[in-house]
Amino acid sequence: MASAFDTARDALKRLPGAGFRSAERMALHLLVEHPEELAKLLTALSDAALKITRCACCGNLAERGNDESAENPENGVPPENGAPLCKICANETRSRARVCVVEHIPDLMAIERSGTFDGRYHVLHGRLSPLRGIGPAQLNFASLEKRLAAEPIEEIILALSNDVEGEATSHFLREELGAKFPALKFTRIGFGLPSGGALNFADPATLRSALASRRDF
Amino acid sequence: MASAFDTARDALKRLPGAGFRSAERMALHLLVEHPEELAKLLTALSDAALKITRCACCGNLAERGNDESAENPENGVPPENGAPLCKICANETRSRARVCVVEHIPDLMAIERSGTFDGRYHVLHGRLSPLRGIGPAQLNFASLEKRLAAEPIEEIILALSNDVEGEATSHFLREELGAKFPALKFTRIGFGLPSGGALNFADPATLRSALASRRDF
Repeated sequence: MASAFDTARDALKRLPGAGFRSAERMALHLLVEHPEELAKLLTALSDAALKITRCACCGNLAERGNDESAENPENGVPPENGAPLCKICANETRSRARVCVVEHIPDLMAIERSGTFDGRYHVLHGRLSPLRGIGPAQLNFASLEKRLAAEPIEEIILALSNDVEGEATSHFLREELGAKFPALKFTRIGFGLPSGGALNFADPATLRSALASRRDF
Repeated sequence: MASAFDTARDALKRLPGAGFRSAERMALHLLVEHPEELAKLLTALSDAALKITRCACCGNLAERGNDESAENPENGVPPENGAPLCKICANETRSRARVCVVEHIPDLMAIERSGTFDGRYHVLHGRLSPLRGIGPAQLNFASLEKRLAAEPIEEIILALSNDVEGEATSHFLREELGAKFPALKFTRIGFGLPSGGALNFADPATLRSALASRRDF
């Protein structure tokens, strides 16, 4: 029988980025050295698991109960079915004209941290992958069509991965949505050398992207 | 008000080795991508927190309730006060003649992983540090004296840190215990160049240790 300590360490080891040694350090930290932090962590995770859900509009993280959109009713209209909106969809100061389509919530968070986008988002929760049986029905795609019919969206910014599946998903979205909403403008984020990236360290695929997306100068 | 997600992420960030980004990844993993693992983690940690205590003999981790020493009564004598023994103290095949004194439980785990020691341990849970108000009374020291009076211990192996406080604690233990148990042998683990360590990468303090502990060859 595995000991309770080993079971806890193995559960921590399943966290992304944790190895055997770091999981052991975490288990000792929580169970031996700082037991007062264990209670805080358990409460925070249980509380978050109860509150966190997906935004009824865009698929981002949203929270049930005393959230800011509920406290400040002027910050956006609650959706009809009572499901909560995320902070971005509830924020009326953000432009409704541009919607940035991303694959996953961390992508959205990364763009938000860059502080360079004042529009709204739509999270697909994946991308097309026929080999793995992921088609449009498995993605958060139908709700994007509904938003296009209901909201004054002018531009769809495709911010999907720079790889074959991201490319295929981008083409699918442009074809499918462009046919139904002919006035809609589609753009795709730039691909190429990262900021601070030295040319001789760039991999061949990055250089291919960078050459393909060259512009007049 | 911080959101429930932010609170959970900040609680994860307090884990040793976790930064902002890795805590965010862990929170997304547990709360969004793999909620089934959250329940397992919460159960494992709560269960371990209830079961884990300190060994009544040496100060190592021990577990209450259906542990192996209770299942196999031949594996060691339960202590009088009913507190559990760790797996090492409950293991009668381990030598009682040698006791390795370490500062912390991870030190004991590291020596166990090396698989080179068949004796028993004593965990001080720290070391002498007069500036921080840590004297012998704040360490797991009195119980070591009791063990020396009760068990057939021949040798104390001092495996404390290679620094000023580890040095001072080693000297204190030798003087204090040597006066009361004159037949007791004291040894200290070797200090010097680590296995695979290149001389030109060693720091000055390591080289000082290595030169001071040179032996005939």
